[in-house]
Amino acid sequence: MNEIRFDIGSLHAAYASGVTVAAMIDAVHSRIAAADDPGIFIHLADKAHMLAQAQALGPFDPINKPLWGVPFAVKDNIDVAGMPTTAACAEYAYMPDKDATVVARLKAAGALVVGKTNLDQFATGLVGVRTPYPIPRNAVDASLVPGGSSSGSAVATARGIVSFALGTDTAGSGRIPAGLNNIVGLKPTVGALSAAGVVPACRTLDCVSVFALTVDDAYAVYGVAAAKDPADAYSRTVKVPALVARPPVLRVGVPAKAELKFFGDAPMQAGFEAALGLLERLGCRLVEIPFGDFYATANLLYEGAWVAERYAAIRDFMDANEAALHPVTRQIIGGARSLSAADAFKGLYALQAYKAKLAPVIASVDLFCVPTAPTHYALDAVLADPITTNSRLGTYTNFVNLLDMCGIAVPTGKRLDGLPMSVTLLGTAGKDWLTAALARDIHAASGLPLGATGWPQPGQSRLGECAPDAMIDLVVVGAHLSGMPLNGQLLELGARFSRSAKTTPSYRLYALAGQSVPKPGLVRVAGDGMQIDVEVWRLDPDAFGRFVAAVPAPLGIGTIELDDRTSAKGFLVETAGLAGASDISAHGGWRSFIGRAQDIAGQSEPQKKKPAVHPM
Amino acid sequence: MNEIRFDIGSLHAAYASGVTVAAMIDAVHSRIAAADDPGIFIHLADKAHMLAQAQALGPFDPINKPLWGVPFAVKDNIDVAGMPTTAACAEYAYMPDKDATVVARLKAAGALVVGKTNLDQFATGLVGVRTPYPIPRNAVDASLVPGGSSSGSAVATARGIVSFALGTDTAGSGRIPAGLNNIVGLKPTVGALSAAGVVPACRTLDCVSVFALTVDDAYAVYGVAAAKDPADAYSRTVKVPALVARPPVLRVGVPAKAELKFFGDAPMQAGFEAALGLLERLGCRLVEIPFGDFYATANLLYEGAWVAERYAAIRDFMDANEAALHPVTRQIIGGARSLSAADAFKGLYALQAYKAKLAPVIASVDLFCVPTAPTHYALDAVLADPITTNSRLGTYTNFVNLLDMCGIAVPTGKRLDGLPMSVTLLGTAGKDWLTAALARDIHAASGLPLGATGWPQPGQSRLGECAPDAMIDLVVVGAHLSGMPLNGQLLELGARFSRSAKTTPSYRLYALAGQSVPKPGLVRVAGDGMQIDVEVWRLDPDAFGRFVAAVPAPLGIGTIELDDRTSAKGFLVETAGLAGASDISAHGGWRSFIGRAQDIAGQSEPQKKKPAVHPM
Repeated sequence: MNEIRFDIGSLHAAYASGVTVAAMIDAVHSRIAAADDPGIFIHLADKAHMLAQAQALGPFDPINKPLWGVPFAVKDNIDVAGMPTTAACAEYAYMPDKDATVVARLKAAGALVVGKTNLDQFATGLVGVRTPYPIPRNAVDASLVPGGSSSGSAVATARGIVSFALGTDTAGSGRIPAGLNNIVGLKPTVGALSAAGVVPACRTLDCVSVFALTVDDAYAVYGVAAAKDPADAYSRTVKVPALVARPPVLRVGVPAKAELKFFGDAPMQAGFEAALGLLERLGCRLVEIPFGDFYATANLLYEGAWVAERYAAIRDFMDANEAALHPVTRQIIGGARSLSAADAFKGLYALQAYKAKLAPVIASVDLFCVPTAPTHYALDAVLADPITTNSRLGTYTNFVNLLDMCGIAVPTGKRLDGLPMSVTLLGTAGKDWLTAALARDIHAASGLPLGATGWPQPGQSRLGECAPDAMIDLVVVGAHLSGMPLNGQLLELGARFSRSAKTTPSYRLYALAGQSVPKPGLVRVAGDGMQIDVEVWRLDPDAFGRFVAAVPAPLGIGTIELDDRTSAKGFLVETAGLAGASDISAHGGWRSFIGRAQDIAGQSEPQKKKPAVHPM
Repeated sequence: MNEIRFDIGSLHAAYASGVTVAAMIDAVHSRIAAADDPGIFIHLADKAHMLAQAQALGPFDPINKPLWGVPFAVKDNIDVAGMPTTAACAEYAYMPDKDATVVARLKAAGALVVGKTNLDQFATGLVGVRTPYPIPRNAVDASLVPGGSSSGSAVATARGIVSFALGTDTAGSGRIPAGLNNIVGLKPTVGALSAAGVVPACRTLDCVSVFALTVDDAYAVYGVAAAKDPADAYSRTVKVPALVARPPVLRVGVPAKAELKFFGDAPMQAGFEAALGLLERLGCRLVEIPFGDFYATANLLYEGAWVAERYAAIRDFMDANEAALHPVTRQIIGGARSLSAADAFKGLYALQAYKAKLAPVIASVDLFCVPTAPTHYALDAVLADPITTNSRLGTYTNFVNLLDMCGIAVPTGKRLDGLPMSVTLLGTAGKDWLTAALARDIHAASGLPLGATGWPQPGQSRLGECAPDAMIDLVVVGAHLSGMPLNGQLLELGARFSRSAKTTPSYRLYALAGQSVPKPGLVRVAGDGMQIDVEVWRLDPDAFGRFVAAVPAPLGIGTIELDDRTSAKGFLVETAGLAGASDISAHGGWRSFIGRAQDIAGQSEPQKKKPAVHPM
């Protein structure tokens, strides 16, 4: 039965229709055989043991066990009880008697470990070739590197051997191999997933990451795995709200065109431009961002002091077993020996300076979109020049964890030469839901099959609105609409987009005079009212309270009636604040008024063809 | 006129009564002469120059220049334009052309720099004797060490030579010398005061601190100096709310009795017990806290990697000028040379582990109270064993900045042997106001004279009500006024009454039609407005959010201007909701209207006596 599709929805549908776990396990193993790639797994679970674990789950129960019977692979720097952890260094191997916290959480939700996957040794690398084991083959094109360090996890997922796989990501190891194998790579907010039971690379930056065939699957796994863990001092509480519809307009920062780096890879450049076009079609407003300070931050990771964290993690082992290390790994990590504690602190100061300088830049947009990798490398190119090629692969990934951002790599299409094209969406800590919500639309729009399986994307369920539990709806009318200048205030308060809506025909809308940021004012009228386009956002009471407290006169928060027979709190204006204001009700909403105003402002002549509407 | 008292209130009162700045400057210099202590200042401002600066301030204006004519001293690791910065190392000295950010802010508020003060070289030490300049004498007992590293600043303040002085505090340098000299030492939340223009000790931990004769003075100076500064990447926004009365009951954590360390100093132990008794009389509930992890955190500071920050700060200078350093300083900072970058990160991991472990412990109380120093040391004892004595002095201070806490050292009385007794109140980041509010009561209750001046404590002004920190003011107009039918909604949400107030004369008040509970509606008008009686209540953001969400149309929450020149969120009504309403503005408020209506209701036909006003 190796036709069972392993995206979680399809697999659960198969179980619901009578397919057995045994058949699933057979499919896993026939796919492993078909892949004929000894580089993917370092250790495989015993088939009988896996079946016994499945039977212990009880009957199919996707409600209480959302990952019931879902096979997954675990990067071999993450502990699975009873399987050796090698970190791709056989001499380093130990046998954990306990699952890593994330593995335990996934198992508790019904997921089944298929095996431990190959990696760039000690998770040091983005290429996937720095391993004493056979190099996993790129699932899309065997002449290319698979990407790393989570090479085996990405390839296993792309080949449909597992539904998802755990990776780790310090410099991009959860994103680069996703991008190179046409799958999704979710690199959570730093600390959202416990790193207890994970061989550290850079403890201050390490993230456990999720590879999956679809965004929905990656996000679902992320939601199950995330929890603050007393066993990991760097873990923290990050809310994982149910995935809901994203705001229709998002301001997306992209590297300024002149600063984009593709190292001569024209198809990648064209592919990225095409991806940006797709984003625009999805309602994103692209904002070019000077990228020099991001690149400079990225350089800190390997040129600065953080490599000393890698050395700190394995110092005793490495000092005693120098020859056991892969030569490239030894060269890189060994470099830390000449770094002093003073150097380490100087590195921290440099990072803090970039953080402070970039904070307002990062806050100026909702998300960022960058190429996942700047180029594809052939295996022999990397083997010939292992350091430079690796370093270039990290162009758009190295700065992310240093700046406490989350990211998701998502396929956007095929390049002109047929190779995979992927972008990574980045957000500030906690914006995993927003990056995932947009990534979901991008993936769907791409129409790509899943990984290297040839399986079509499953139909996406339509996302609901954000659940109203204990949240307060806020109707926004003007500058707080998605994509408008003040929308970031809502996002910073953790507001979630609920829906676009219209008021009842009882309102008039005015463009207020004397505002630094142009704003409208909504007034309910006794007669002669219009329907006005609005958006409904949801905030928790604390955030709502802070938001209302900051609303300046003449605006206030009253009750607004919507044409779906609901009403909610929202922006109204004091009539005393209407002096000098223009009635713009005939535009039907602020967005169309602004669009019209921009059209008018932007044209040299042509707009005249289309007369402006002046209802007053 | 050296009888002028230099606490800020007394000094300003003196100015108000005609005392001149020239007389103040004479007092400064006669006190410097009387102190006969060449160890206090490394550099003194030119008298004529100081007078010229004072004259440039214009006439006495304590409203716009809250530190008008207030003399202060600056620790000589903080830049003052035109005075050399030595950090107590003549060979290191440079001439800054710019004030440190904090100095510039204080000067802009009217304060006058008297001079630069001695310190433990490069701010490394808590003893005050590690200087190539003469050792400043403890202002209370010259046989004792003055404490450090901000030795000169503390002694200058204690002797009444200045109103306040700036110190720095990495390990306790802003608290220990305060405790040993019977003055107040406010060590702000890390990052609240910019460190731009300060010679770094440990950049990740350094705080500029304030020595003063009273808590009010220290807090006032802190409020002027605090601001996020783009020039310091470690600076951050910390709100400094006006000092208000503290909650009457506070849970105060104290080290478990068995874990207190006094190194055999029985009078200090007795003094601390007496101080705890005082806290209890002030309404504090003492909670004994296991202190082992706090001590372990403290040990990280000098035993761990942070000493490498001190080396990083002066590496080039030190490597080229080894002999220029004080021998003890050289020994300590030189120790960093053998620390690797991996050691530095291991130190950071250890700190993170303590932070995670202690977070719930710290959150279990409102504040902590610890002895400022565990013992007093005689000069010769410290000179005989410079490292151990210094280390012991940091018992209750070293962990504070590492754990991102704020603290204030405050005199609590005299020990049985007559020496100064001081405790330090500690709070999480941003609780400076709460520690200061309690310290103020402690100092007042101690009845101690100020520093070593013999001046009595000035009368304290009575503080206002509830802490506005993070609270939101809500103006209520009608049914939510105290004693009115809906006031209970506020009380249930934990709202606290702030004050009765009047609006500006820009409003009209209506009795709304068709309300189950009679309610008014307030409208701001362009002309022909009245002043309306209102009440201001305070809620936390969550409660405020819930309250606003429940306000029914046609009422809403906008901005209301009050006649005390403040404005706050409060009830307004949509003009569309005024159908059938009666203008009752002439009553001046809902309470008098209701009173009148009740009077009227008590009669048979009365309403007719006073016709309703219908301005619209």
